[in-house]
Amino acid sequence: MSKADTVVRHESDAEGVVDIPAHRYWGAQTQRALELFTVGNEKLPSRIVHTFGWHKAAAAYANQQLGCLPHSMAKIVEEASLEVASGLLDDHFPLPLWQTGSGTQTNMNANEVIANRANELQGFPLGSKHPVHPNDHVNRSQSSNDSFPTVMNVAATLAVREDLLPELKRLEAVFTTKAAEFSQAMRIGRTHLNDAVPMLVGQSFDVYRRQIELGIGRIKETLVRLEEVPQGGTAIGTGANAPKGFDTFFCERMSALLSIPIHPAQVKGEAMSAHDALVELSGSLNGLAVTLTKIANDIRLLSAGPRSGIGEYLIPDDGLSSSIMPGKRNATVAEVLIQVCQRVMGSHVTVTHAGASGLFELNVAKPVLIHAVLESIELLTDACGVFRERLLIGLAVDRERLEKNVSMSLMLATGLSPLIGYDKVAEISRKAQKEGTSVRDAALALAYVSPQDFDSYTAPSSMLGPFASVTVPIRSVDEN
Amino acid sequence: MSKADTVVRHESDAEGVVDIPAHRYWGAQTQRALELFTVGNEKLPSRIVHTFGWHKAAAAYANQQLGCLPHSMAKIVEEASLEVASGLLDDHFPLPLWQTGSGTQTNMNANEVIANRANELQGFPLGSKHPVHPNDHVNRSQSSNDSFPTVMNVAATLAVREDLLPELKRLEAVFTTKAAEFSQAMRIGRTHLNDAVPMLVGQSFDVYRRQIELGIGRIKETLVRLEEVPQGGTAIGTGANAPKGFDTFFCERMSALLSIPIHPAQVKGEAMSAHDALVELSGSLNGLAVTLTKIANDIRLLSAGPRSGIGEYLIPDDGLSSSIMPGKRNATVAEVLIQVCQRVMGSHVTVTHAGASGLFELNVAKPVLIHAVLESIELLTDACGVFRERLLIGLAVDRERLEKNVSMSLMLATGLSPLIGYDKVAEISRKAQKEGTSVRDAALALAYVSPQDFDSYTAPSSMLGPFASVTVPIRSVDEN
Amino acid sequence: MSKADTVVRHESDAEGVVDIPAHRYWGAQTQRALELFTVGNEKLPSRIVHTFGWHKAAAAYANQQLGCLPHSMAKIVEEASLEVASGLLDDHFPLPLWQTGSGTQTNMNANEVIANRANELQGFPLGSKHPVHPNDHVNRSQSSNDSFPTVMNVAATLAVREDLLPELKRLEAVFTTKAAEFSQAMRIGRTHLNDAVPMLVGQSFDVYRRQIELGIGRIKETLVRLEEVPQGGTAIGTGANAPKGFDTFFCERMSALLSIPIHPAQVKGEAMSAHDALVELSGSLNGLAVTLTKIANDIRLLSAGPRSGIGEYLIPDDGLSSSIMPGKRNATVAEVLIQVCQRVMGSHVTVTHAGASGLFELNVAKPVLIHAVLESIELLTDACGVFRERLLIGLAVDRERLEKNVSMSLMLATGLSPLIGYDKVAEISRKAQKEGTSVRDAALALAYVSPQDFDSYTAPSSMLGPFASVTVPIRSVDEN
Amino acid sequence: MSKADTVVRHESDAEGVVDIPAHRYWGAQTQRALELFTVGNEKLPSRIVHTFGWHKAAAAYANQQLGCLPHSMAKIVEEASLEVASGLLDDHFPLPLWQTGSGTQTNMNANEVIANRANELQGFPLGSKHPVHPNDHVNRSQSSNDSFPTVMNVAATLAVREDLLPELKRLEAVFTTKAAEFSQAMRIGRTHLNDAVPMLVGQSFDVYRRQIELGIGRIKETLVRLEEVPQGGTAIGTGANAPKGFDTFFCERMSALLSIPIHPAQVKGEAMSAHDALVELSGSLNGLAVTLTKIANDIRLLSAGPRSGIGEYLIPDDGLSSSIMPGKRNATVAEVLIQVCQRVMGSHVTVTHAGASGLFELNVAKPVLIHAVLESIELLTDACGVFRERLLIGLAVDRERLEKNVSMSLMLATGLSPLIGYDKVAEISRKAQKEGTSVRDAALALAYVSPQDFDSYTAPSSMLGPFASVTVPIRSVDEN
Repeated sequence: MSKADTVVRHESDAEGVVDIPAHRYWGAQTQRALELFTVGNEKLPSRIVHTFGWHKAAAAYANQQLGCLPHSMAKIVEEASLEVASGLLDDHFPLPLWQTGSGTQTNMNANEVIANRANELQGFPLGSKHPVHPNDHVNRSQSSNDSFPTVMNVAATLAVREDLLPELKRLEAVFTTKAAEFSQAMRIGRTHLNDAVPMLVGQSFDVYRRQIELGIGRIKETLVRLEEVPQGGTAIGTGANAPKGFDTFFCERMSALLSIPIHPAQVKGEAMSAHDALVELSGSLNGLAVTLTKIANDIRLLSAGPRSGIGEYLIPDDGLSSSIMPGKRNATVAEVLIQVCQRVMGSHVTVTHAGASGLFELNVAKPVLIHAVLESIELLTDACGVFRERLLIGLAVDRERLEKNVSMSLMLATGLSPLIGYDKVAEISRKAQKEGTSVRDAALALAYVSPQDFDSYTAPSSMLGPFASVTVPIRSVDEN
Repeated sequence: MSKADTVVRHESDAEGVVDIPAHRYWGAQTQRALELFTVGNEKLPSRIVHTFGWHKAAAAYANQQLGCLPHSMAKIVEEASLEVASGLLDDHFPLPLWQTGSGTQTNMNANEVIANRANELQGFPLGSKHPVHPNDHVNRSQSSNDSFPTVMNVAATLAVREDLLPELKRLEAVFTTKAAEFSQAMRIGRTHLNDAVPMLVGQSFDVYRRQIELGIGRIKETLVRLEEVPQGGTAIGTGANAPKGFDTFFCERMSALLSIPIHPAQVKGEAMSAHDALVELSGSLNGLAVTLTKIANDIRLLSAGPRSGIGEYLIPDDGLSSSIMPGKRNATVAEVLIQVCQRVMGSHVTVTHAGASGLFELNVAKPVLIHAVLESIELLTDACGVFRERLLIGLAVDRERLEKNVSMSLMLATGLSPLIGYDKVAEISRKAQKEGTSVRDAALALAYVSPQDFDSYTAPSSMLGPFASVTVPIRSVDEN
Repeated sequence: MSKADTVVRHESDAEGVVDIPAHRYWGAQTQRALELFTVGNEKLPSRIVHTFGWHKAAAAYANQQLGCLPHSMAKIVEEASLEVASGLLDDHFPLPLWQTGSGTQTNMNANEVIANRANELQGFPLGSKHPVHPNDHVNRSQSSNDSFPTVMNVAATLAVREDLLPELKRLEAVFTTKAAEFSQAMRIGRTHLNDAVPMLVGQSFDVYRRQIELGIGRIKETLVRLEEVPQGGTAIGTGANAPKGFDTFFCERMSALLSIPIHPAQVKGEAMSAHDALVELSGSLNGLAVTLTKIANDIRLLSAGPRSGIGEYLIPDDGLSSSIMPGKRNATVAEVLIQVCQRVMGSHVTVTHAGASGLFELNVAKPVLIHAVLESIELLTDACGVFRERLLIGLAVDRERLEKNVSMSLMLATGLSPLIGYDKVAEISRKAQKEGTSVRDAALALAYVSPQDFDSYTAPSSMLGPFASVTVPIRSVDEN
Repeated sequence: MSKADTVVRHESDAEGVVDIPAHRYWGAQTQRALELFTVGNEKLPSRIVHTFGWHKAAAAYANQQLGCLPHSMAKIVEEASLEVASGLLDDHFPLPLWQTGSGTQTNMNANEVIANRANELQGFPLGSKHPVHPNDHVNRSQSSNDSFPTVMNVAATLAVREDLLPELKRLEAVFTTKAAEFSQAMRIGRTHLNDAVPMLVGQSFDVYRRQIELGIGRIKETLVRLEEVPQGGTAIGTGANAPKGFDTFFCERMSALLSIPIHPAQVKGEAMSAHDALVELSGSLNGLAVTLTKIANDIRLLSAGPRSGIGEYLIPDDGLSSSIMPGKRNATVAEVLIQVCQRVMGSHVTVTHAGASGLFELNVAKPVLIHAVLESIELLTDACGVFRERLLIGLAVDRERLEKNVSMSLMLATGLSPLIGYDKVAEISRKAQKEGTSVRDAALALAYVSPQDFDSYTAPSSMLGPFASVTVPIRSVDEN
C-alpha cells in the first residue's frame, strides 16, 4: 500500500465502521476483504476487473431499459463503468486472487468503485453511497452469483478470441511456410525413435500444421458454450429480484460493447452451480499443451548437437550460453514452451478439481478456476509467440546430414517387400545390420533381387507414397 | 494357459524356432510377445480385438479392389477376419495390455490368427503361412503404425456411439422426468452451502438435465475428429508400400461394415505421431466426470439423514446395510458413480501424459492410452446406468421437510431489497439471526415495512423470478 | 521498466554489443535473456534470488579456501553476494519465471550483478568485468547446472522450515485446544454422510490434530533428501573445473550462513539430472492439501445454515456478505483454503510432468518445477494461517442442536447388538424409521429388550468406547 | 456365473428373501450387492480378499482372548478364515471393485463366507447362520469401517514388502553392476540434449542406482505410517461395541500371522475418515514413476538407431519386429515401463481425488483408492522386472561410437577456462563451430594456448573431476 493510503476516511456498513484510504474508490466490503484475505501475493487477473467494467455498463443499460434505473443515473453508472473497463481505475481493485469462492468481494469492489466514482462525477463525496448506492443501483437486478460467472465466461472468451486464436493462426501459418520451404528435403522417418522409411522434412511440418489447425477447431467449438452466460439468474439461477427481460437486454448490450456474440444461458443455474464450459475449455488447452509438447520435443531432439546429437535441424542462435561451457547453444525457447505446457497440464487438474467441487446452487471455486484458465491462455499465447519468432521462423536444416542419414538406413529395404516378401527382406536387413554393410550389399549378396530392382524399389523418393502428391498445403504454397 | 496348450507345434521365423500351443491360431511373433510381456494381468480390451476383425476385413476388400490381393484370397481373409470381429476367436488373442507402445504385437497377432484361420479354412495346416501369409497378405498395404491408431479411433467411436451416448440420453430423459415431477415442490436454494432464496426442486433437476444435454454435445463434437483415420499412412504417414486409393476403399468398406462415418485423415501422420483426437475425447469424459461428481454429491448430501442430515430427498432402499449398524441405509450407488469419476479424472491424466510423450513419427503409448479411454467410457456408461435405475428413478422428496426449511429461511428478506434497499434488509436479517426470530418478526419490529408488503414481497413463489415460467422442459412435461 | 532505464551503457560479449540500462548491475547475458523471454508477467520467485546471494557468498568462501580466489577478491564478492541475499538488489534481477529450463540466465544474472557491484565497491565502472569477472570469478568452480539445483533445494528447505512447519505446528496446537474445548460436547457421528453412532466433538478435532501431526512428520522426512545438494558437480555432475573439496567447503559455509544442515549429494548427477527430492516434497504438499480439503469441507458442512443446514458448528462472522442477500454469512476462509488446495494438487501434477521430463545429464524444467513447489508452500502456509486465525480459533458449537441430533438418532440401537443380536436390532431400526418413532419406542414395542437395558446399552456416553479414555491429547489439555 | 450357479437356496434377511447359488458360501448381503453393483468387469483385488482372511482370523483370536467368543467358535472361525487367506475360497468372493465406498459389502462377504464355511465344517447347512452368525460372531467387535481400512493398509504393506521392494533392490543391484561394467567407457555428457563435457558411462548408471536407492528409502518410510491400523475403532473411530484391548490383541495376532509390524493407530478415526498414509504411499509410487520414466527415456534415446540415432548403447534383441519394416528392432520393454509409469501417474491423481473426497467420520472412496495403489505396486514391480531382465542386464555400449562422439565435442574447450578465461574459450568454441573444425585447431589458430597446454587441459580424462575417484559403489564393485 502506498504512503498516500495512510490518510483514511471512515465508512460504516451493517458491520460497523471501517477505515478506508481516503482517495480510494473502494468501500467497506472491499476494505474488510482486503484485511481478511491475506494469502499469497497474486491479485485477481486484471482481465476480470476490466470485464467487470463492461459488465456493469451493460447492466446499467438493461436496468434503464426496464425502468429499474432512471436514465441519468444509468448514464453516470455507465460512464464510471467504462473507466473500469479501460483500466483507468485498476489501482482501486486491490483484492487478491485468494478470496471467497464466489468472487463476491470483487463484484462488491466493482459496485463500490463505480458508485463512488459516479457520485464523485456528480460532486458528491466518496463514501456517501448517494445518489448512487453500490448495491441498490450498481448491482441492481444482479447478484455476484450470476455476475461473476458471466464475467468469467466473457473474459475467457475475449482472451481466446483476442490472444490465443490469432497466435495459433500465426503459428499455423509458419508451419505452412516451413512445410513448403522443406518440401524437397528428405529425411529419415523415425518410429520408436529408430530409423524407419524416409519422408520429406516438409511432411513433418505439415503434420504440425495440421495439429494446430485441428487444435484451433477444438478451441473454437468451446466458445459456443462459453458465450451462454447466466446473467439474470441472480442468487441461484431463478432470477429473484431481476425483472423479466434483463438477461436479453444485458446480453445485447454486452455483445454490442465487445463485438462478440453473448447469449442468455438456456438454464441459468447450470452456469452458476457448475463451470462445465470452462472445464471444457481447459480440456482444450490441455490438449493444445499435449500437441505443443510433442512438437517442441521433436524439434529440440532433431536439432540436438552440435556434433553428437541427431543434428538434422539447425535452430537460430539466441545469444545465450552456458555459465561454464563457453559457446554452448541450447534450444532455450523450446524449453520455455515445454515448461509452459507442464504448467497448463497441471492447471487443468486444478480446474478439474475446482469444477467438480461445486455443491448445490453455487460453485465456490470460481477465482482459482478462472485464474488457471486465463493464465493458461496467456502463457500458451506468449510461449507460442516466442517459439515461433525466435526458433521456428529461422529454423534451417543440415542437408548434408539429412542425406547421409537417409542413405545409411536399413529400412530402405522395406520397399522390397511387395516384390520378394516380408521374410526375405527381414533376412536382408538382419544380415546388413550384423555385418555393418548397406542393405544393398546384403540384398545382392543374398541374390534375392537384381541391382536394378533394388535401386528402383528402394529409391527414397519412391517410398514417399501417394502422400506427397496429395498434400495440398505444401503444393499450394509452392505454386504461389 | 489351459492344459490343452501343452501340446505344441514348432514355428520358425527370422529369429529362430518357437513352440506354440498346437491348436492356437497365433504365430511366432505373438508367442514371443506373450513370453516377453509379463506385466500385470490385464489383456488388451476385447473391443480392440474385435475392431481389428472389421479392420482386416475392410483392408482385404481394399487390397482386392486395387489388385493387391486376388479375389479368392481376399474373400477367405475377410471370412476369417469377420470371425475375429464376432468374438469367436477371442481365445486366440492372448496378449496383455502392457506391450509395445505401437500395439504392433496385437496387429501381428491379428495377422497371424487370420492367416492361420484362412489357411485352415482352405485345408492347410497351422503355421504353414501358405497360401495366406500374415505379413504379405493379411497385412498387405498396411503397417501396425497406421492400423493400430485406426482401430483405436474406430473402437472409441463405437464405444461412444453404442454405449455412452445412449446411456446419457436415458439419463437426460430421467432428469427431464424428475424436473416435471418436482415442478411444484419448493425447496430452499443453497449457496456456499448456506440457506439462500427459494426455488423449485424441479429447477435443480432441470439444471442437471441441461448439464447432461451439454455434455452430450461436447462428446458428439469430438467424434468428427475421431472419425478421421490414418489408414493408408503405413509406417510413418507417407503411405510407403500402400497403393494410391487404399485409404478411400478401406474407409468406405469400414463405414459400410459398421454403419458409422469413417474418413481418411487429411494428414495421416497427424493421427499416428499423436493422438490429439483421443486426448480431446478424454477431456470430454473428464468433463463429464466433473458434471456427474457434482450431481452425485448434491443428491447424496440432500438425502443425508435420516434424522440429522439435510434429508430433503429420499432415495430408494438398496437392500444393503452396515455390518455394525443394523438398518443403516446409504447412497451406495452415488458412491459408485463418484468413485468411477475419480478413476476417469485420473485416467485423463494418464491419457495426457501418454499423448504428450510421442516423439517423431510415432506415438508409442498407444495401448495405455486407448485402454484408459475405453475403460472410462465403459465405467461411465455402467455407473450412470446403475445410478439412474437404482437411485434416480425412485428418488422422492420429503415435502414436509422441504416446506419447513423454506419457511424458516432468513433469506426470504432478500425480496424486500427493491422496496426498502439493501442496507435495511441487512439490518432485518441480522436482527432475526441474532434473536432467533423469523425475518417477518424482525422486519415488523423495525417497522421498515408493512405486514402486507412483507408478505407480498417475500412470498417464496414470488422469488422464483421469470425462470420458472420460461423453463420449457418442465412446462411441456406438465402439459402432457 | 522505469524511466531511469532509458539511459543505457553499452556492453559487449562474444555475441556482440548490447544496450543495458546504465544504473543496473546486470550484464549482457541478462539483458539478452530479458529481451528473449517475454512470456507472462511472473518473475522468478525472489526467494530463489536471495538464496543465490547466500550461495555465491558460500562459493566465494570455498574458492578462497582452495586457493581459487585471492582472499581480498573473495571478500568483496562475498560482500556483494550478501547484499543480494538481503534483498537490497532485487531490482537488479529482472528475469521472468519462464526462461531456460536450467535456470542458467538467473545464475548468469547473479554472476553479473555481483561482479558489477563488487567492482563498483572497488571504484570500477559497471560493465568493466574487472577486477571481478562474472564467469571467471563469481562463477568460479561452478556451473548453473549444479548451482541452480542447489539453490532450488536450499530455497525449498528454507521455505518449509521457516514458513510451513511453524504454521502447521500452530495449526496442530489449535486443534489440540479445540479437542480439549469440546471434550464434553457430544455429537452424532456420520458415515456415508448419514447418522451413525455418537462421539465427542473433541474427538473430531483430535482426528484433525493427528492428521496435521502426521503431515508434519511426512514433510520433515523429505528434508533429509533435500538437504543433499549437488554443488561441486559443475556441468554434468562429474565436477569438471571444480577443485576437490569445493563441495565440502561450500556446504559447511552454506550451513553456517543459514543455520540449517546442508550436505554434498552422495551422487551429484542425481540432483541435477532429476529432482526426485522436490517431486517427493511436492507429493507431501499434495498429501497435505488432501488432508486440509477434508478438514475444510467437514467444517463448512457442519456449520452450514443458519437454519436449513447441519448447523452444529458456529463459525465466526467475517464481516463479509452477499451482494444480493443482505446479512448472509459464508465460510469464506474455508473456501480460500479449499481453492488453495486445488491449486496445490494441480501444481503437483505440474511438478510430476516437470520431474519426469528430464533427459540425460540435466533436467531442464527447473524454473517451472521450483516455482510450483515454492508457491504451494507459500499458499498453504498463508491459507492455513487465515483459516486458523479467522475461523478455527473462534469456532463454537450449537449445543442445543448437537444434543437434539444425538437424541434422535436411529443408530443408538447399535448398542443393543451385543445383547440381542444384529438381526433383531435391524428390525427395531427399520420399524422406527418406517413409523417415524424413536428406536426406544420401537424396541419396547417389539419387546426385544427391557426399558432398563435399552437405556443402559444405548446411552450415548456408553458408545464412546475405550477411545475417549485413552486419547492422551484431550486429557492432557484438560488437566492443564 | 457358471451353470452350477443356477441351483439356488433361499435366504432371508431383514429385507426379505434372496436366491443364492446353492453351493456358494456367500449370503444375502453379498447376493444383493452382486445384483446391484453392475459396473465394469473388474473384481476387488484378490489381495484384499486374502488379507481379509488373515484379518478375520486375527479378530477371532482377539475376541476369544477377551471372552467375546467361546474358544471353540473362535477356532472354527479361524480355520475358515485361513482358508480365505490361502485363496482356496476365491470363487466365493464375487463382488466387483465398483461397490459401496466403504467396502462394506466385501466385509459382509467375508463374514458370510466364513460363517457358512465354519458352520459347514461343523455339519450345519449353508444359510443357517447357526451356530456361527456372520455379524454377531465373525464380525464381532468390528465394523466394516475399521476392518476395511485395516485390510487396505495391511494389503498395501504386504504388496510393498513382498513385491515392490525386493524388485527395486534387484534393480539397484543391476545398476551397480552396470556402473562397474562401464567404469572405463567414456561418453559425451549431454545437457539441454546437447553435447557437454565428457563422463564415464558408469557414472550414468551410478546416477540411476542412486535414484533407485533413494526411491527405496522414500517408499520404506511410508510403511511406518501404513502399519498403524484403525482396527478397534469400529463404526466411527470411537470403538463402540468393541471391548477395550481388542486393538492390541488384534494387532499382535496379525503381526504374528504375517511377520510384519502392525500397530494400533494412535487416533483410530484418522485412518478411517481419511487415507493420508495411502495417499502418501501413492505419492512415493508417483515419484518412482517419475524416476523410471527418466531412466527409460535416457536409455531408449541413447540406444536409438541403428544408424541415425545416438546409438551409443546397444540393447538386447527381443525377437520382435515391425509388421511392415522387416528386421526393425525397438526398445519395446522400455516402452512398457514408460506406459506403466503413465498409468501410475494418472492413478496417483485418482488417489488424490479419492483421498480428498472424504467427509465426516468415513472416507467412502476406499475401493477405488486401494485398487489404484495395489495396481500401481503390481505394475511397477512387473515392469521393472521385465525392464531389468530383458533390457538392462544385456545392455552393451558401442565403444567406437562413444569415442568418436567424445573426440568431436566442442565442449572439451571448457577445460581451458581456468587457464585462459571464459571469454577466450567462448571465442574458440564459436570459431570451431562456425568453421567446422575441431576446437584444438581453432584454439591454436587463435594462439590462445600452446598445443601442450591444450592437450593437457582438455584431456577428457582430466575432466571427470574428483567425482570418479570418490564414487564408492563403482570402486567397490571393481575391487570385488
